[in-house]
Amino acid sequence: MPFTKSAPGILSMGKATFQVPQDALFGRNRQKLLNELKGSCEGVIFLRGGNNPERFDSDHEPIFRQESYFWYLTGVKEPDCAVAIDISTQQVTLFIPKLPADYATIMGRIQLPDEWKDHYQVDQVKYLDEMESTLEETLLDDKPAMNGHTTNGDTTHAGSTNNKKLYLMKGPNSDSGNMYEPPTLESKRLQDNTIIDVDTLFPILAECRVGKSETELAMLRHVTEVTSFAHAYVMRNIQPGNMEYQGESLFRHYCYYNYGCRLVGYTSICGCGPNAAVLHYGHAGEPNDRQLEHDNICLFDMGAEYFGYGSDVTCSFPASGKFNDRQRHIYRGVLQAQIDVYNMLKPGVSYLDCHKAAEAAILKNLIAMGMVTTNDKTVEELVEMRLGAVFMPHGLGHFIGIDTHDVGGYLPGHQPRIDEPGLRKLRTARDMKENMTLTVEPGCYFIDHLLDGALAEESPLKPYLNETMIQEYRGFGGVRLEDVVVITKDGCINYTLCPRTIEEVEHVMSGGKWPPTEDKAPELRRERLLDPNPLPSPPSL
Amino acid sequence: MPFTKSAPGILSMGKATFQVPQDALFGRNRQKLLNELKGSCEGVIFLRGGNNPERFDSDHEPIFRQESYFWYLTGVKEPDCAVAIDISTQQVTLFIPKLPADYATIMGRIQLPDEWKDHYQVDQVKYLDEMESTLEETLLDDKPAMNGHTTNGDTTHAGSTNNKKLYLMKGPNSDSGNMYEPPTLESKRLQDNTIIDVDTLFPILAECRVGKSETELAMLRHVTEVTSFAHAYVMRNIQPGNMEYQGESLFRHYCYYNYGCRLVGYTSICGCGPNAAVLHYGHAGEPNDRQLEHDNICLFDMGAEYFGYGSDVTCSFPASGKFNDRQRHIYRGVLQAQIDVYNMLKPGVSYLDCHKAAEAAILKNLIAMGMVTTNDKTVEELVEMRLGAVFMPHGLGHFIGIDTHDVGGYLPGHQPRIDEPGLRKLRTARDMKENMTLTVEPGCYFIDHLLDGALAEESPLKPYLNETMIQEYRGFGGVRLEDVVVITKDGCINYTLCPRTIEEVEHVMSGGKWPPTEDKAPELRRERLLDPNPLPSPPSL
Repeated sequence: MPFTKSAPGILSMGKATFQVPQDALFGRNRQKLLNELKGSCEGVIFLRGGNNPERFDSDHEPIFRQESYFWYLTGVKEPDCAVAIDISTQQVTLFIPKLPADYATIMGRIQLPDEWKDHYQVDQVKYLDEMESTLEETLLDDKPAMNGHTTNGDTTHAGSTNNKKLYLMKGPNSDSGNMYEPPTLESKRLQDNTIIDVDTLFPILAECRVGKSETELAMLRHVTEVTSFAHAYVMRNIQPGNMEYQGESLFRHYCYYNYGCRLVGYTSICGCGPNAAVLHYGHAGEPNDRQLEHDNICLFDMGAEYFGYGSDVTCSFPASGKFNDRQRHIYRGVLQAQIDVYNMLKPGVSYLDCHKAAEAAILKNLIAMGMVTTNDKTVEELVEMRLGAVFMPHGLGHFIGIDTHDVGGYLPGHQPRIDEPGLRKLRTARDMKENMTLTVEPGCYFIDHLLDGALAEESPLKPYLNETMIQEYRGFGGVRLEDVVVITKDGCINYTLCPRTIEEVEHVMSGGKWPPTEDKAPELRRERLLDPNPLPSPPSL
Repeated sequence: MPFTKSAPGILSMGKATFQVPQDALFGRNRQKLLNELKGSCEGVIFLRGGNNPERFDSDHEPIFRQESYFWYLTGVKEPDCAVAIDISTQQVTLFIPKLPADYATIMGRIQLPDEWKDHYQVDQVKYLDEMESTLEETLLDDKPAMNGHTTNGDTTHAGSTNNKKLYLMKGPNSDSGNMYEPPTLESKRLQDNTIIDVDTLFPILAECRVGKSETELAMLRHVTEVTSFAHAYVMRNIQPGNMEYQGESLFRHYCYYNYGCRLVGYTSICGCGPNAAVLHYGHAGEPNDRQLEHDNICLFDMGAEYFGYGSDVTCSFPASGKFNDRQRHIYRGVLQAQIDVYNMLKPGVSYLDCHKAAEAAILKNLIAMGMVTTNDKTVEELVEMRLGAVFMPHGLGHFIGIDTHDVGGYLPGHQPRIDEPGLRKLRTARDMKENMTLTVEPGCYFIDHLLDGALAEESPLKPYLNETMIQEYRGFGGVRLEDVVVITKDGCINYTLCPRTIEEVEHVMSGGKWPPTEDKAPELRRERLLDPNPLPSPPSL
């Protein structure tokens, strides 16, 4: 019998795609959370999964993608579910919607609770209409409600007959500024007789997501390798005269057709020429719709997603396939910035310092080019003046995982955000720890309104800039190189296996083989460059 | 100088893609609405555009797709805008967000109001913070507010100093059941001194969208031709052993890479074998992840979207490339249902009658196969017993345009929805009018829970079903054939140029040329089959 669906407990998009054991991924995620809470907390963790809103008033339904915290704990791909985890018994209860009979006609056979239980490897499955009564049973003694008043927080509650709490998520996302709001509960018995704790869970669960497990690392490595080879495929198949969006289309097709990656982690950014200086180009207002010209630099920032774990990789290359002098000069500074950061990254190192090191590398290159003048200042002094932020106005990188900008960047107890040019865009300034996964994405751009500001008469930065040379680079665009790396016990490993050196890029763009047979740039720490995850390469792509 | 961006006033994704004059599309849409209101209404039409919410609490932004009514009147691709149209002067004012300076760093150069004005060909552009004061100026005399109380509806308002009304949208979407809710206005002067009319605009604007303009028809024809050739491309490139989602990937790549169609009208449905009986298969819970087996029927329902106008086409074909007897027998009935409907469709004909004719054709085929027994009833009597709905539990089709299930299906004054099996799923039962665009999508499926119901002891349909034969077809899946057609003065034209006859499907799946050089099935009314819109065919796909 041919292979059709994955076996229960295995996530995959078919036999030729990456196989992930459900329990090693999500079961282990739950275990990590429980280990953090056990001893100090008693009661129930409760989260709602995401819903799937239609587009405005219409019946158009975008493809549902689960809310990330819920995904982390359950791996449930369907909308409108909930989960309760008993901290002391570790029992996991998944709540699912009771679907109308004609769901079977439209959406597919209605799975029974026992099928959900097998598939998601939880202890029990109940319908949503039993959700609050189940929480009541778990949290409340059988004694009648004592009509106490609800207080949130840690004070013991008058009406409570035990010490069990209901732990709900509430907290800010430091990338979006949005609040994760706790779910509303209808049950008056729960409201009156349970201590509802909205303070404890959020920072602990966010911190769980910061350090990746072995299986999470395998997922991120895999999806980054897929992404890397897709970038190489795009480089090999694009040329002047193509439209920017054709690069996006090639990328998405390669990742989906070959490796089952239906979604991307974020909107593909495919800017050429001046568009390469627009950091998040490619949105609906600027939909990758420019034609590539021979002398354009291309900045393509795209990442696949596989079962909720995404990658985030940027390549910059000449549309023509051969770097001209201007492109080469800018490119080498950005590549050196990556290398300098890889030489620093290890547990205990501050990511803020890495950011500054990247800026320093880019400034050094601009000094060598004659575009920046030191006026007897050291490069470090120029960095502190925030001169680097004129050319690299974004942060060095960010945590990556289930969200592209993964959570935990500015949790309490760590280095807070610094409100200075460039640095205020840094998505984390934390000290590095083993098994953190981050992007390293230095860039050097020529952005008119930032150059205008820096070159204005009143600007303290003006004396350090070679205005004539800068004017020549307006319209050039920019270069960004972005890798996904993991912090190891004593350094870092680069999961990204893209063509990176100038020779590698030109080799691939002229049709050369990738991956290569020899690693000529070990300083890029592409540990598996010569032996990537050997998925079958399909014939047509 | 190479072509890079479209000229102002022209919509396109590059010189090789379809060119649409902005004004002929959206200007004409506005004019149509104004023609309906002029004379009977005085005042201002006001609509908010769509916003672009992030995914839950994260900063993940899906690609923005404009709200459809706002798109119809403006063609504005950016979120967070609004439009006011003065009914008597016909002056169009677009309101745009005032963007922060660092938008230019992240999202691209901030366009000035005059650039928006040129691009969208409106009379004036203002910032959103001037929106309510502009409405006040247009709607209110200079006399001070008279502190009347607001009433909605048509009664003259005490505080109003003239007859001008503010027309807002409010009404139900008959496909989703969702309400379009009118925007909230902060201005107390407007609330107290203007007659806010939420009754008039919605049904009129929805009705405007029902009959398509010449340019809208050109858009729908184009995107349906792209969709048709993409389906042919998929058929030619798919085979047993492939995964269902590889069909989706091929389709999306073909439409985007060649014709700039970044979005699809709806989630691609790529079911094979039993999945072909799941009407909206392919969602996140059933993500097109089955492997095609040699004897499977494939039902692929996919449509491209280009500048907000979408197509919706279904092809059914054997994975092997050659129909086996069971597949052929079911297929020919569904194809005949399409032909019977095309022979009826013209102005004045009821779509409800077309639906019943399609059911009759499918039942006749099942009778010929011996699967249905008439027991001396006529086919029409079997249709009235709703026997057809056992095999075709959905409606014959729907309006199509800016929404896949386009609006206007059940507006007041037309045939209301009929609450009977099958018919309650019909998305319009209206009489046909020239320039309506609809899908015609008969289907014949073997859906376990519907067959179980029809074969139950107490079922009045049981005596008409050959249970032994039906059991043999369980797991077969189903066949659906879906075309996009336009109603003409005296008939209909089929915009869909897919391989449709059994010979055509087998020809294309064995690598044959498409489009063909001879139309052997003129009864399918594929007017441009031999001479489709001659866009350059790119070399690689």
